Amino acid sequence: MERVCIVGAGVIGSLFAGHLASVCEVSVLTRRREHADALNENGLRVSGTSDLHARVAATDDPDALPPFEVAILATKATGLQSAVQQLAGRFPTATIVTVLNGIGAEEVVRAHGAWPIVSGVTFMSGTRHSDTHVEYILDTETWLGPYEETPFALVQDVADTIERAGLKVEALPDLRPAQWSKLVFNASVNPTAALTGLPHDFHFAQETEPVDLGHLVHGLVEEGKAVAAAAGIELHDDPWEMNVLATQRGAAHYPSMLEDVDAHRQTEIELITGSLVREGERRDVPVPLHSLLYALVKGKEASWQVSPTGGQR
Amino acid sequence: MERVCIVGAGVIGSLFAGHLASVCEVSVLTRRREHADALNENGLRVSGTSDLHARVAATDDPDALPPFEVAILATKATGLQSAVQQLAGRFPTATIVTVLNGIGAEEVVRAHGAWPIVSGVTFMSGTRHSDTHVEYILDTETWLGPYEETPFALVQDVADTIERAGLKVEALPDLRPAQWSKLVFNASVNPTAALTGLPHDFHFAQETEPVDLGHLVHGLVEEGKAVAAAAGIELHDDPWEMNVLATQRGAAHYPSMLEDVDAHRQTEIELITGSLVREGERRDVPVPLHSLLYALVKGKEASWQVSPTGGQR
Repeated sequence: MERVCIVGAGVIGSLFAGHLASVCEVSVLTRRREHADALNENGLRVSGTSDLHARVAATDDPDALPPFEVAILATKATGLQSAVQQLAGRFPTATIVTVLNGIGAEEVVRAHGAWPIVSGVTFMSGTRHSDTHVEYILDTETWLGPYEETPFALVQDVADTIERAGLKVEALPDLRPAQWSKLVFNASVNPTAALTGLPHDFHFAQETEPVDLGHLVHGLVEEGKAVAAAAGIELHDDPWEMNVLATQRGAAHYPSMLEDVDAHRQTEIELITGSLVREGERRDVPVPLHSLLYALVKGKEASWQVSPTGGQR
Repeated sequence: MERVCIVGAGVIGSLFAGHLASVCEVSVLTRRREHADALNENGLRVSGTSDLHARVAATDDPDALPPFEVAILATKATGLQSAVQQLAGRFPTATIVTVLNGIGAEEVVRAHGAWPIVSGVTFMSGTRHSDTHVEYILDTETWLGPYEETPFALVQDVADTIERAGLKVEALPDLRPAQWSKLVFNASVNPTAALTGLPHDFHFAQETEPVDLGHLVHGLVEEGKAVAAAAGIELHDDPWEMNVLATQRGAAHYPSMLEDVDAHRQTEIELITGSLVREGERRDVPVPLHSLLYALVKGKEASWQVSPTGGQR
């Protein structure tokens, strides 16, 4: 693997691009023209856990993309559809790696082409300081697995390259247990953060008093686990333990769904909570708490179209 | 009834004070000194559905209160405890009328004195424009009923005076059916508005698509009705119908809990959702949806003490 295209240069895309540039030719497909211009002019800086300054070839025009063997799709869930449409009909032998939050991204990719697909979940995190500077905060793993008929050797090739670039990665014969662990975790934590305004801090694990937020998160995790079990998935990690561990890990993490809500941007609720709720309905597993969070976040998104008037009480 | 004291001059307190001043001597106990000074200097203006300019004797010092036969407690739930403490030991023959949102205010009053208590709920609404100007928007009824051993004749006396002042009022032998109707309504609507940022608009009654917010509100209403039934209360109005009607009533209402959240003020969640959840637990009625809203609003309040740091994802 010599040439990699990163689609979507948010925090995760930038972390991949910055590291992979040390071992590959890296192109970046951005959504905004200015973002591509800034990357071409200044390169991409990664600070924090790594300290890198990478040269990348960025463009917002899919026609201008140089050929590549691997594309890493790292858009937000809300940008997935349009990103995949830009790739449709191009680079038919390239491998597409999905590392979005939630589940269901592979189906969207497949609907637009016959590329071999590698499923991914990443536990890396960072903070975006500018279009050309991202801070690497948690140097945790990315897990990859085959989707449909993708040979495992191909998954391992991608994993090897990512590892040579200095990132932590694991190739798994079946990613779904990990994907679902993260799905249940994200579905329990992210909308709760988005609705309360709390970063993912100690409140999420607190179960001392009856009113403590941890009870709610625990209830959400239990619903999610029931759906996973009904779908025949044996979870790789217990989402409640993931939650407790994450809240003990120093500075509280600020989930992107909370940022989206703060910025009045459409959230990733569809691929996260939406996927889980639909799977629950398909398998007759009751998910009242996730349905409630789903309706509340959708309501929140709707509120940005509303200008309030009227009386108080 | 010649002398009435209004405790708490928010929207509801100001509407009572402004109207009652046309038939009684009205004193007002405020929380803030400047509020009392402004009322004494400028009087109290009511615009909108009524057009009044009232003289009131306001003070923030309970020692300076003139005697009265009736006090109307119209603080927010969060200001109840300190307001009642100010009255403790004073005016033992006065009747205390509670018109707070939620349930449980009467118990707080009783804990501080042996006054006869009249329970109230009010459906009036308005908008506060300044310390001395409130706009009267919905001229809907206030309902009163006896608490414990309070003679019904006393309830009727209070109702008569309020009616002479030009407000709509009804005296009921048992207020609990109305109080509980409003409790279930408020518990279903107010936290949902506070968490989504939506005013009480058409979304709350929408049940066309599976994701529509109305399903959630309906589920909350059903939980609330189950608790009321277990408590032996036959509801005066169906809270779901109250919800549907209210959303069809022209300009969308902006619940005070949403304003509190916008202003990062402590909300009335304890007397509303908290009362309902505790009653559900006491009577072994499951209230998972209300418990979730409760935990989310408490989390929201906690978030104002947190300054976020850390990475994104």
